[in-house]
Amino acid sequence: MFPLALDPASEVPLYRQLFGQLREQITSGQMAAGERLPATRELAGSLGLNRATVTAAYELLEVEGLISGQVGRGSFVLERRRGDGVAWSALMREAPLLPGAAPGALLSFATSRPPEDLFPLELIRLTCNEVMESPSFPAVLQLGAPSGYEPLRQFLLEEARRRSVAGGGDDLLITSGCQQALDLLTRVLVRPGDSAAVEDPVYPGLKNLFLQAGAKLAAMPVGECGIDPAAMRESSKVAVVTPSFQNPTGATMTVEARKELVRRAREFGTVLVENDIYSSLCYEGQPLAPLKQFDEAGDVVMLGSFSKIAFPGLRVGWAIGPKALIARMTAAKQLADLHTDQFSQAVLLRFAESGRLEEHHGRMLAAGAERLRAVMDACAAYLPQGTRFTRPSGGMNLWVRLPEPLDAHDLLPRAQRENVAYLPGRYFAVARVEPGALRLSFASLAPGQIREGVEILGRLFTAELSRDTRPEMAMV
Amino acid sequence: MFPLALDPASEVPLYRQLFGQLREQITSGQMAAGERLPATRELAGSLGLNRATVTAAYELLEVEGLISGQVGRGSFVLERRRGDGVAWSALMREAPLLPGAAPGALLSFATSRPPEDLFPLELIRLTCNEVMESPSFPAVLQLGAPSGYEPLRQFLLEEARRRSVAGGGDDLLITSGCQQALDLLTRVLVRPGDSAAVEDPVYPGLKNLFLQAGAKLAAMPVGECGIDPAAMRESSKVAVVTPSFQNPTGATMTVEARKELVRRAREFGTVLVENDIYSSLCYEGQPLAPLKQFDEAGDVVMLGSFSKIAFPGLRVGWAIGPKALIARMTAAKQLADLHTDQFSQAVLLRFAESGRLEEHHGRMLAAGAERLRAVMDACAAYLPQGTRFTRPSGGMNLWVRLPEPLDAHDLLPRAQRENVAYLPGRYFAVARVEPGALRLSFASLAPGQIREGVEILGRLFTAELSRDTRPEMAMV
Repeated sequence: MFPLALDPASEVPLYRQLFGQLREQITSGQMAAGERLPATRELAGSLGLNRATVTAAYELLEVEGLISGQVGRGSFVLERRRGDGVAWSALMREAPLLPGAAPGALLSFATSRPPEDLFPLELIRLTCNEVMESPSFPAVLQLGAPSGYEPLRQFLLEEARRRSVAGGGDDLLITSGCQQALDLLTRVLVRPGDSAAVEDPVYPGLKNLFLQAGAKLAAMPVGECGIDPAAMRESSKVAVVTPSFQNPTGATMTVEARKELVRRAREFGTVLVENDIYSSLCYEGQPLAPLKQFDEAGDVVMLGSFSKIAFPGLRVGWAIGPKALIARMTAAKQLADLHTDQFSQAVLLRFAESGRLEEHHGRMLAAGAERLRAVMDACAAYLPQGTRFTRPSGGMNLWVRLPEPLDAHDLLPRAQRENVAYLPGRYFAVARVEPGALRLSFASLAPGQIREGVEILGRLFTAELSRDTRPEMAMV
Repeated sequence: MFPLALDPASEVPLYRQLFGQLREQITSGQMAAGERLPATRELAGSLGLNRATVTAAYELLEVEGLISGQVGRGSFVLERRRGDGVAWSALMREAPLLPGAAPGALLSFATSRPPEDLFPLELIRLTCNEVMESPSFPAVLQLGAPSGYEPLRQFLLEEARRRSVAGGGDDLLITSGCQQALDLLTRVLVRPGDSAAVEDPVYPGLKNLFLQAGAKLAAMPVGECGIDPAAMRESSKVAVVTPSFQNPTGATMTVEARKELVRRAREFGTVLVENDIYSSLCYEGQPLAPLKQFDEAGDVVMLGSFSKIAFPGLRVGWAIGPKALIARMTAAKQLADLHTDQFSQAVLLRFAESGRLEEHHGRMLAAGAERLRAVMDACAAYLPQGTRFTRPSGGMNLWVRLPEPLDAHDLLPRAQRENVAYLPGRYFAVARVEPGALRLSFASLAPGQIREGVEILGRLFTAELSRDTRPEMAMV
């Protein structure tokens, strides 16, 4: 076995790091068939790990058919012979690490999603039935166009023109949610080695997409007012920004910063991608003008979605951008999944056209404002002294920084045992890991649940802070 | 301008080839800013092209902002200056060529899809309403799991176990149609330079996916009984096969060939992917056992979908394969689009569970059998002497080979002028282009329409064959 180098500060758990490095040694032939692996106790001792960490890594190697454990004798690298079938482990690309679900947590601040209890079930039933009774229903059930269900596409394009976020040179593609729009963008634009500027901290689904495409990430630190436009450098081919109620921080850029960012992108020839999915969840005052409104060159790519203001289970988003880009993304879309589900497109179109979406939006704003107040009040009341947290005026997320030496990642299992979940800051880190940071996604919980959950977290964090020694887990 | 090399036999139209080569010369700097392009008449003359072909290529270059046409002076390569914004054309990857839609064709044999007039609208309305009244409806509208809507996943997994196409080592991922399952497979398995064995001719959405991922295609010629297992070589990392009613030929492999293919895949360690979307559209006798049933090693990956037997507008398919692979595909799925639309998943589950899918399937089989007879009878009656065509016993497609010197690609515009559409063979070609070949997708047309369409084609082809000279278009 060759030396192993594990990084305790990484967002990748130690057992996954160990598994990955051993796997690489085995599939590359550095460890030969028949070679015996160190006993778990022995390896744990030499690496300063918990024995359970080593056992978990060995189990994954066994699942992938790379080693075989024999009771009393230890674990050996398996020999592969012709006719043994597919060597899966050697053939597959490494999977990106994604935040795990937190099953069973009653009070989950882990997911940025709308409140289920406010879904207007009667209005949705009515809307669906109108779609199903309409003469176009058979066409909705039939194979569709890669660019999207044309009546919805036209509706969204007209609305975009009305808002001055689509000009004569722009076109619109409907995608299976905003995530797919980001995916199609990376397929069309990113080649290995390209520099992509992203916010830090940032939504992990964005970070991992660009990493998977082989991009080098250029971190733009997010402050009180989002990123500083000067952080976007000329060397970046593409920059992705969420100017309003950024995920995970909730930060919002000023109008001046927006204008300056668009100016710089034009000067550099950088593709500026505006993730606009949270902007309409503005609980105080009016939403600020999006980047795309300041884009006289017509180069900004704007991404939208129904997921945050309507029902995320119906996967419909869109991208607005220059015709040449949208044509390429549409070709990539056809290869990816032919087209977006048409039933959901037709239902969301009817929901919007009928005015029901706007009605629902009003209720969402009222509920969101109440929940935002609840989470900010609870953070102020219950979290330990020295805690800092953002004070957004919209969106679904709050960014909390616990005082040192608290580590939000290490404390999560304890929170989960008390039925509370959140996402630790390290999932969102690009260049700067903040061990004490965590995201509270507050929109899907009722105000009472929010208070209850934050109170539990506050109690737990305060107790931890008052202990003299660091917990065992933090030493692993 | 550097020399241009166009290939008239390519599936890529000449104007696209010309555009691509000029674009490359401009973005690479081989053609300098300010350089004048040859006049369209002049370039057409020197390349032996139609002038309209050159004009179309120049128009595309202008749309991409690479050249500027000035009346009376000609076209010039545009100079790019700092601050000109995004150089889109240089930044984007080349788009794959996909078969164009044939809008307006009343009698379209161009798409492999079920008949719209047979959609059981009342049963669907009933099913949707049951889903909307069920207590799980709010959860259906909420953000879901990347692996799929769990009740549907369990339903499909149990059905797969019952059919012996899922063993203890298998798992199941729900995808946005079978196309996405193929896409996720290429993301997880294919690295640039890998060899992928595919049928020839093959479904273009498969061919283009693998090409886009950088795979080298190894063609396995499709004969009367599908591919010869001996055509799958050890050098291929992955092989994708449609054993029953292959698209585009309708060919079906024998049980012996299936067993031999699975045996060879195991011997070579090749990942065998079975595209099973057509097998249940079996109009004569019983469907043959799928490859996965002969797969004792548990390595075969099987892809299924509701699209061909239910409603393709609802995008729900799935992949069954070894747990380690499905876990990687699920991670890739989450990055691609978070998860598949849940409303459609819930509706299709209810449609299947209630027995309505089976009822509908019965009607689809009766209609399909009638349509298959109609298209075979019409081909025999109307197509010119010397035409050969496949005689499938199921599926949606028939492969027609016109006698020489007919070229199905060149004849298509004329067919479209008479309101008939089909896809020419070159879209499906891997190593072997058959200019006289075309695909007739018969399932979505009524028997009378099928006869009418084939009669028009027969008249047109026969007239062409009886002309002494080749048409102008074929010389382009």
